[in-house]
Amino acid sequence: VNPLVSVVMGSDSDLPTMVECVKALQTYEISYEVLVLSAHRSPEQTTAFARQAEARGVRVIVAGAGGAAHLAGVIAAHTSLPVIGVPIDSSPLAGFDSLLSTVQMPPGVPVATVGVGKMGAKNAAHLAARILALESKGLSERVKEKQRQMTEDVLKIATTLPAKLKELLDKKA
Amino acid sequence: VNPLVSVVMGSDSDLPTMVECVKALQTYEISYEVLVLSAHRSPEQTTAFARQAEARGVRVIVAGAGGAAHLAGVIAAHTSLPVIGVPIDSSPLAGFDSLLSTVQMPPGVPVATVGVGKMGAKNAAHLAARILALESKGLSERVKEKQRQMTEDVLKIATTLPAKLKELLDKKA
Amino acid sequence: VNPLVSVVMGSDSDLPTMVECVKALQTYEISYEVLVLSAHRSPEQTTAFARQAEARGVRVIVAGAGGAAHLAGVIAAHTSLPVIGVPIDSSPLAGFDSLLSTVQMPPGVPVATVGVGKMGAKNAAHLAARILALESKGLSERVKEKQRQMTEDVLKIATTLPAKLKELLDKKA
Amino acid sequence: VNPLVSVVMGSDSDLPTMVECVKALQTYEISYEVLVLSAHRSPEQTTAFARQAEARGVRVIVAGAGGAAHLAGVIAAHTSLPVIGVPIDSSPLAGFDSLLSTVQMPPGVPVATVGVGKMGAKNAAHLAARILALESKGLSERVKEKQRQMTEDVLKIATTLPAKLKELLDKKA
Amino acid sequence: VNPLVSVVMGSDSDLPTMVECVKALQTYEISYEVLVLSAHRSPEQTTAFARQAEARGVRVIVAGAGGAAHLAGVIAAHTSLPVIGVPIDSSPLAGFDSLLSTVQMPPGVPVATVGVGKMGAKNAAHLAARILALESKGLSERVKEKQRQMTEDVLKIATTLPAKLKELLDKKA
Amino acid sequence: VNPLVSVVMGSDSDLPTMVECVKALQTYEISYEVLVLSAHRSPEQTTAFARQAEARGVRVIVAGAGGAAHLAGVIAAHTSLPVIGVPIDSSPLAGFDSLLSTVQMPPGVPVATVGVGKMGAKNAAHLAARILALESKGLSERVKEKQRQMTEDVLKIATTLPAKLKELLDKKA
Amino acid sequence: VNPLVSVVMGSDSDLPTMVECVKALQTYEISYEVLVLSAHRSPEQTTAFARQAEARGVRVIVAGAGGAAHLAGVIAAHTSLPVIGVPIDSSPLAGFDSLLSTVQMPPGVPVATVGVGKMGAKNAAHLAARILALESKGLSERVKEKQRQMTEDVLKIATTLPAKLKELLDKKA
Amino acid sequence: VNPLVSVVMGSDSDLPTMVECVKALQTYEISYEVLVLSAHRSPEQTTAFARQAEARGVRVIVAGAGGAAHLAGVIAAHTSLPVIGVPIDSSPLAGFDSLLSTVQMPPGVPVATVGVGKMGAKNAAHLAARILALESKGLSERVKEKQRQMTEDVLKIATTLPAKLKELLDKKA
Repeated sequence: VNPLVSVVMGSDSDLPTMVECVKALQTYEISYEVLVLSAHRSPEQTTAFARQAEARGVRVIVAGAGGAAHLAGVIAAHTSLPVIGVPIDSSPLAGFDSLLSTVQMPPGVPVATVGVGKMGAKNAAHLAARILALESKGLSERVKEKQRQMTEDVLKIATTLPAKLKELLDKKA
Repeated sequence: VNPLVSVVMGSDSDLPTMVECVKALQTYEISYEVLVLSAHRSPEQTTAFARQAEARGVRVIVAGAGGAAHLAGVIAAHTSLPVIGVPIDSSPLAGFDSLLSTVQMPPGVPVATVGVGKMGAKNAAHLAARILALESKGLSERVKEKQRQMTEDVLKIATTLPAKLKELLDKKA
Repeated sequence: VNPLVSVVMGSDSDLPTMVECVKALQTYEISYEVLVLSAHRSPEQTTAFARQAEARGVRVIVAGAGGAAHLAGVIAAHTSLPVIGVPIDSSPLAGFDSLLSTVQMPPGVPVATVGVGKMGAKNAAHLAARILALESKGLSERVKEKQRQMTEDVLKIATTLPAKLKELLDKKA
Repeated sequence: VNPLVSVVMGSDSDLPTMVECVKALQTYEISYEVLVLSAHRSPEQTTAFARQAEARGVRVIVAGAGGAAHLAGVIAAHTSLPVIGVPIDSSPLAGFDSLLSTVQMPPGVPVATVGVGKMGAKNAAHLAARILALESKGLSERVKEKQRQMTEDVLKIATTLPAKLKELLDKKA
Repeated sequence: VNPLVSVVMGSDSDLPTMVECVKALQTYEISYEVLVLSAHRSPEQTTAFARQAEARGVRVIVAGAGGAAHLAGVIAAHTSLPVIGVPIDSSPLAGFDSLLSTVQMPPGVPVATVGVGKMGAKNAAHLAARILALESKGLSERVKEKQRQMTEDVLKIATTLPAKLKELLDKKA
Repeated sequence: VNPLVSVVMGSDSDLPTMVECVKALQTYEISYEVLVLSAHRSPEQTTAFARQAEARGVRVIVAGAGGAAHLAGVIAAHTSLPVIGVPIDSSPLAGFDSLLSTVQMPPGVPVATVGVGKMGAKNAAHLAARILALESKGLSERVKEKQRQMTEDVLKIATTLPAKLKELLDKKA
Repeated sequence: VNPLVSVVMGSDSDLPTMVECVKALQTYEISYEVLVLSAHRSPEQTTAFARQAEARGVRVIVAGAGGAAHLAGVIAAHTSLPVIGVPIDSSPLAGFDSLLSTVQMPPGVPVATVGVGKMGAKNAAHLAARILALESKGLSERVKEKQRQMTEDVLKIATTLPAKLKELLDKKA
Repeated sequence: VNPLVSVVMGSDSDLPTMVECVKALQTYEISYEVLVLSAHRSPEQTTAFARQAEARGVRVIVAGAGGAAHLAGVIAAHTSLPVIGVPIDSSPLAGFDSLLSTVQMPPGVPVATVGVGKMGAKNAAHLAARILALESKGLSERVKEKQRQMTEDVLKIATTLPAKLKELLDKKA
């Protein structure tokens, strides 16, 4: 059975960031595949992947890259599927380079850009889930359930705050 | 009949930017509505809108705002629909503020961010079309047709380049 | 007895920063409460908190958040109390994102923004004290006493400088 | 009778920005004075002003400046009143300089910073009103009334949107 | 006869910038062609162009683009010729986006990046001339002659400075 | 008689900025010369100028340049006189490039950097005056007189503020 | 026998970055020399080096520097060889200073700028190889072979991804 | 005997940076004093220091501060001596805040700004030496000697490069 989401990255050094996307996809029970594809170092494979993804049953592509992060944009140019871009902070410029390279796409070739680094990698999964939920009642329920869970988690954390605060205040005293 | 895409903006001064989104949606024949909703000045209406959008049949929400652009994020917190954020360059800080306010969302509340200004407003429509195309064969065809058209347009422009170049070279001579 | 200052934060990972606010409030003997509230993950609780704060006797709200830091702005939209925003440097973008998301608020919904990180968390308490001192002669005296103390501290540090300088010069020699 | 709010600015070239603060204060019927004071060019007058403001009955000081905007910080060092800083975008660096110079104050000398330029100048008035409302039931009512008005204005604007949109779409057609 | 330099750009709206490159190439009598090719909107043509350029006799490729400027990088991925990238300031972000998107390329796929806008477009031609001069004694002489000319121009301008200065001083008096 | 201050700039297009330096030097009655010298286009003349300046009686060098502004740094490398750098905002990057290129000099080759653009050009003259005043009682008096004058000017402007404010308020009403 | 590429750097503290350039040159079997030359601290040697490089048989110069990185630009002003600039992230400003100081050169004195830090140092070698390959069939073959190798490496890495992903997922579980 | 240079800093936490200035002053045998003075926390002492410095025989003031670094500017407002500003990178914003707060001073109140952090602290001493050398033949000789020494140091380092390079290449092999 083919995966619904392709998680691609420009280098295996991006994996510690992108694994956050994979873990979040798992919590939604969304099928996925994980690939290393470089817009610049394996351009033909990247283009071929992008062209064939839809026919293979892929519905959403998540692409993470650092530096001059062209991966998401190049894939978006060769598919009509929605492409989510994750800017990775792997250069000395702290992710400003990958963010601007990913988000400032020309009209007609959109990349749905999420935040820089692990935070963004997680949100790529959450965004993919929202998109896929449009055509799956079950997934739509899981997204809503997850939002409720997220709220409950925040509320539970809230109850642990006094103890954590006390610990910090004591430690510094 | 209910619209598939809600195009919302924080102020009517954002309309000259967001009209680019509307025009691009029209070319796809995607039904839409256009609303002014402020995360800060009409927060209850914004929250109510976000909560009811899915039940009203809306599938994708596009939210454009400038400055500390919270609109897309606040809407994403109250719906499980995909939300596309358009950072608008309406403050002296050239859109760096609206871009960062829109894209750097915490895990679980993703905003699919596109580029700053009119370029981004257009791409919000193109991204919405790609998402909606997942469940509409007709729209999927129109997206692909549009991509082909876009390519043809670039190729046509290419043929007019020598004349334009000559004009520029002559003018400056 | 109800607290005068609510110190809220978007996540318990913000606590090591925001504890600096708490410690500074303690030196003023200002009553406070500390809460985790997320503009995006527990929006209803956040809105409810903001709407009820004034009636509960809260006079000033301090809100700290990182990334696309909407917390202070969203709270300011639902209360007429003064809201102080602390941008936290928790994303790879070093706090530029949280600073711009907090300070660039639209007209009518002001957030009194202080500096990024722990420095700002401390100043949120000092700013709250200045505001509350407007209606409390005792607190006004404590603020002034604190300013004198601060000056004395700097002067005392000045007397220890020669020894510290000598140590650094010797070490590097 | 003495004014409650002092609106000071570093140069009369800042007046077109700071007049937005004055106009917003007028809508609240808050008494004010407007002064030109330079942290660098009339430092003694600035210091004297800051030291005497509280005794003169001033409750909140709003200080607007551009470039290396030290005015708000220097005033905050010489008073225990709350000081609101308005960064003005008068240098080629678009207000990044005045924003960082105003907001990044050391612990103990807080400046309540609002947004860059006219947007911030307006919010300085709204923030002053929220602070002053803590000790004035009448003003508190006006702040709340203003918030309601602001919401109504947005809702009214919303009704005019279809016509404006049509005009823009027709013009471009 | 085939051109030595290909000047490509992502859109004909880049022509007013890139014409500066053409004019500078003309002063060196270097043969050139000018093409519109979009990394995103005509990706196949761009890839085909890049792959065939060397066989067609092209020696250096100059690629100008704005926003998320992927053009130079994508071309560099499909050729082993030297590629010069010109970041164009066509988005609200003043060219910071195109600069970072062009220069921060991953190892193995270098783009020789020049400055933002017209200044960079001119330098792309000067850089191409320096590269081509390595294999052409005649061109090497023209490059050196041009450098001498440039120096003479500066020295000549120097002689006109007193008059220009006087004019400015008089006007302002 | 030789000038005490050399005002040099990288191009005659910098003159409208640097004339502000000249005008301020005139108010101090400091002798000056104005030269166009390019670190890159007339490097030998620049080096020769820097090497000979001290022997010619020059005491302070002011160097203004835009973009990758190397002029002040290159001159500082060839003289032991104090060199003041004026970053000029002539590229699309708003002066961030010239500021960083001028100020971030390596240890041993300092450039006394002032603000970006006309504001900085004026301050280059004021800084030169402060340096030269160390060895001239007369000039020291003029600097102090100028500071007093500056204060008086601010105070005088203060008296005109009510009328200007009224005009602005009336106009907008 | 003389080297084809000169690798120069402003300080020996830049060597850990620039060694990446050397290692990449070795893989191409391109002859090189490595020199410390400072635009500011040994300007005469730098100028002399630049003037004599071509006569010594050098074909491409790679210059790495941090902070106000003038080295590449100053060398480009004294030679007609192609100069590649490597911005090094050695100051607190993360390489934004060295990048802008290197790339924003005035017309006529181009610096072929590559990315910040080690990534850029590697690409300087790859760019030099592409330039030198224009006149060497053997090197042209090695460049193409290297590109193929690079692609194969990415494809090989791709096969190891599932194991790496599993390890990361297990570790975090 | 009174010192010629006052080295002041906003906090003793700035000492590890400013000690670099002290060490460089020592190599010139320039007399100095080191003081902690805060523009905001001990403003009266700072103002008094600035006003009395000249009468005490001080010729140049070096002021280092982080964050909203007002120290140098405030001192410059109360003295007619040349003031050198050292921006310190002590906040999360990497020194962009202290650089802009120090350099962007209004006309008439110049601060001679040097680079961010230790590099700048050293250059403050070198700049002070250049200024003081204008009135001291002996110091002028020492500055020139130092420049020669600096050049010799670079040349000596150059001779050690092959060994260092070999070590790095071997280590990585």
